[in-house]
Amino acid sequence: MSQTPDSAVREYIDQHRAAFLADLAEWLRIPSVSAQPQHAPDVRRSADWLASTLKETGFPTAEVWQTPGAPAVYAEWPSDDPQAPTVLVYGHHDVQPAAREDGWDSDPFEPVVRDDRLHARGAADDKGQVFFHTLGVRAHLAATGRTTPAVNLKLLIEGEEESGSPHFRVLVQEHAWRLAADAVIVSDTGMWSEDTPTVCTGMRGLAECEIRLYGPDQDVHSGSFGGAVPNPATAAARLVAALHDEHARVAIPGFYDGVVDLTDHERALFAELPFDERQWLRTAKSYATEGEAGYTTLERVWARPTAEVNGIGGGYQGPGSKTIIPSSAMVKLSFRLVAGQDPDQVEQLVRAWAADRLPAGIRHEITFSTATRPCLTPLDHPALQSVVRAMGRAFGRPVRYTREGGSGPAADLQEVLGAPVLFLGISVPSDGWHAPNEKIELDRLLKGAETTAYLWGDLAEHWRHAP
Amino acid sequence: MSQTPDSAVREYIDQHRAAFLADLAEWLRIPSVSAQPQHAPDVRRSADWLASTLKETGFPTAEVWQTPGAPAVYAEWPSDDPQAPTVLVYGHHDVQPAAREDGWDSDPFEPVVRDDRLHARGAADDKGQVFFHTLGVRAHLAATGRTTPAVNLKLLIEGEEESGSPHFRVLVQEHAWRLAADAVIVSDTGMWSEDTPTVCTGMRGLAECEIRLYGPDQDVHSGSFGGAVPNPATAAARLVAALHDEHARVAIPGFYDGVVDLTDHERALFAELPFDERQWLRTAKSYATEGEAGYTTLERVWARPTAEVNGIGGGYQGPGSKTIIPSSAMVKLSFRLVAGQDPDQVEQLVRAWAADRLPAGIRHEITFSTATRPCLTPLDHPALQSVVRAMGRAFGRPVRYTREGGSGPAADLQEVLGAPVLFLGISVPSDGWHAPNEKIELDRLLKGAETTAYLWGDLAEHWRHAP
Repeated sequence: MSQTPDSAVREYIDQHRAAFLADLAEWLRIPSVSAQPQHAPDVRRSADWLASTLKETGFPTAEVWQTPGAPAVYAEWPSDDPQAPTVLVYGHHDVQPAAREDGWDSDPFEPVVRDDRLHARGAADDKGQVFFHTLGVRAHLAATGRTTPAVNLKLLIEGEEESGSPHFRVLVQEHAWRLAADAVIVSDTGMWSEDTPTVCTGMRGLAECEIRLYGPDQDVHSGSFGGAVPNPATAAARLVAALHDEHARVAIPGFYDGVVDLTDHERALFAELPFDERQWLRTAKSYATEGEAGYTTLERVWARPTAEVNGIGGGYQGPGSKTIIPSSAMVKLSFRLVAGQDPDQVEQLVRAWAADRLPAGIRHEITFSTATRPCLTPLDHPALQSVVRAMGRAFGRPVRYTREGGSGPAADLQEVLGAPVLFLGISVPSDGWHAPNEKIELDRLLKGAETTAYLWGDLAEHWRHAP
Repeated sequence: MSQTPDSAVREYIDQHRAAFLADLAEWLRIPSVSAQPQHAPDVRRSADWLASTLKETGFPTAEVWQTPGAPAVYAEWPSDDPQAPTVLVYGHHDVQPAAREDGWDSDPFEPVVRDDRLHARGAADDKGQVFFHTLGVRAHLAATGRTTPAVNLKLLIEGEEESGSPHFRVLVQEHAWRLAADAVIVSDTGMWSEDTPTVCTGMRGLAECEIRLYGPDQDVHSGSFGGAVPNPATAAARLVAALHDEHARVAIPGFYDGVVDLTDHERALFAELPFDERQWLRTAKSYATEGEAGYTTLERVWARPTAEVNGIGGGYQGPGSKTIIPSSAMVKLSFRLVAGQDPDQVEQLVRAWAADRLPAGIRHEITFSTATRPCLTPLDHPALQSVVRAMGRAFGRPVRYTREGGSGPAADLQEVLGAPVLFLGISVPSDGWHAPNEKIELDRLLKGAETTAYLWGDLAEHWRHAP
């Protein structure tokens, strides 16, 4: 009886499981903490280790790309099929800080397997999810008998993701011609739960600003002047209060212009997820849900734009009271954006809205930081369907659809390269990203490799370039 | 030609001017800074010096009253007229901190006369305005030939006014039977300007609270949870924004219940003052006036109740941005109250209003600090009319009416003793209370003494007890 392609992939992965895990453990031992200057040599060592390992894996090209901060790793493995699509895999090799005394049950940089889970800083975020690509592409070749992948495979693994990716956009711009791809696969996210494999189809964008409001030239006595001159703390509060209307919709004129609405089909797909609002509230450490009228909680955090105050301050902050009108106040606002919204346009709307609402006698300045654009891949995109099929084969379960409420540097890839962004992640919420005892289930990690082993062939089959 | 009573008073004051100023300078050399623990011995020394000097002045009783903090001085000089009214003068012998390097042109505790003004910490606030009573009562006796004052004269000079009078109310309660009076004369305020003598007829009350708002149990990610759970900083802002309606009236239900409105006559009297709004705005260091519709600036700060935010805080306060929903936020509010408003009632209204407005999922706690009641003396009160006449004789100009927007411990005297509070002050805004180079014009200081010299006789003449 001849072997099916799937059983060949599984057999290859089984046979190489021990070596794969040993190599990953070696990488996890390098404490590549980008946020801590004393670990800068470790981040460089991590990049060198990865580039060298990718070469051993078979990538003809594997380079360390310097940045003004920590280095990235770039590798490519061209297909011998001239009609093959080009895929760029994004991930990162830096990790969050970790110390035994933070509550780890073992050394965060000495990987151990307990309960069939590999425990180490970076096991899930993101070294494990980067490294399964090395096993996946080898399994793909072994099972198909190919000598090159069915797609032109590129990897860009940055070294500053845990530090806010300060040099990532420029790096991508500088190397745009080498990074050119038909699709970007982000390998730095998760799926719904161990029982529910999912693909993420979009990520919200982000615009952030600080508004500083100035009233009296110095704090003045509220008995002598209160009630007769404008108070910048009151003005700040009124701005925040005016952010939303009574339906919890953002009340900045024009904010929803162009927003791509959820289709009934997408809403039905979200509703298929086994969502437990009480459980979700525990994760949110909150005591009630509230939000835009007419949408569910998942729809609100994944697919609707929002305005949130992240900080507000002004006047006396100490114990007791002080009868002043403060001379200044500030609010920090963030806006999550969805497909159809442009951060630059939102910035203009916010500036006009604020200027329009502030009373005479209150001067203000608004500072926007670098924005992140939203990304959204249509459900019927052929590459997305390939990911769904590949994941379904690996996990043996129906694959559901999610989105990501947060925002990330992958949006820069979409914007600079003009390619759709797909998210392939096998981590789950309980894996403890950024927390003590970060871990990844071994079987799930290997299913990540298995997914990519199927994915490259499926992509090449369903999404070939015209000859 | 026989001497008029007024010329006799002036002659006495002229003759004793040098000795009076020398004694005051001696007192001003004692750095009785109640806020600085290292000056506690100086505050005690100041009290002893005053008690001893009051005895020398002729007060049969002059005592130092201990408190858990700094001591007060109490003195009394009964009248031999059994129908004489009893007057309690309030002032304080402690001073604000001062150091040469704060910008003083000379040592703040080494009084010097420049430009006919006595420069020293406490010259105006409040030693100068306490001490003119010693000269005033002697001039009153000399000019009338009396051996005791025409009123039963009591003085209560506290030692912690610049530290918030933390023990004053209890002190007054403990000694209420000795402090009993028909009227309280507060000698710790000012008049409109050097050219415009005024009497103050009331002082606003004060209720202060801090509202703490709690949302998620810890800061949570605004990308994952924003727009779907309540944000306590937003809730804080909405509370502040809801404090006022579109006419800048306080929008807390019931807040204006019982408020004693300004009469047309009082408004006309305020309008007689040479008020320059541009000048006032410079003093307020502000760029616009705003406030309750239908009232002038002076009416707003003197005679209308207000709500003001003195501090607001929550979430990220550092540079740049942080995408969180903060776990808590706080606002500090103060309410200035006018006659007819009860601080306890206002507290209940604020508590009900806040509880009613906060959304599900936001827990809160409200802490009120000790309140100060408003005081208001009717324009036709006989004691007030005596003050107006006495001041008019001393200054030789029409006396106008003001009120005080701030709040002070004198309200405790009104409440505990059940006596009307009158304000007799000869300081002016440019005297630099709490600032470097505090000063008092010598002629004005002596006019303060002259005012009291006329006042005791006028009071006894127009406001005698029934025989």
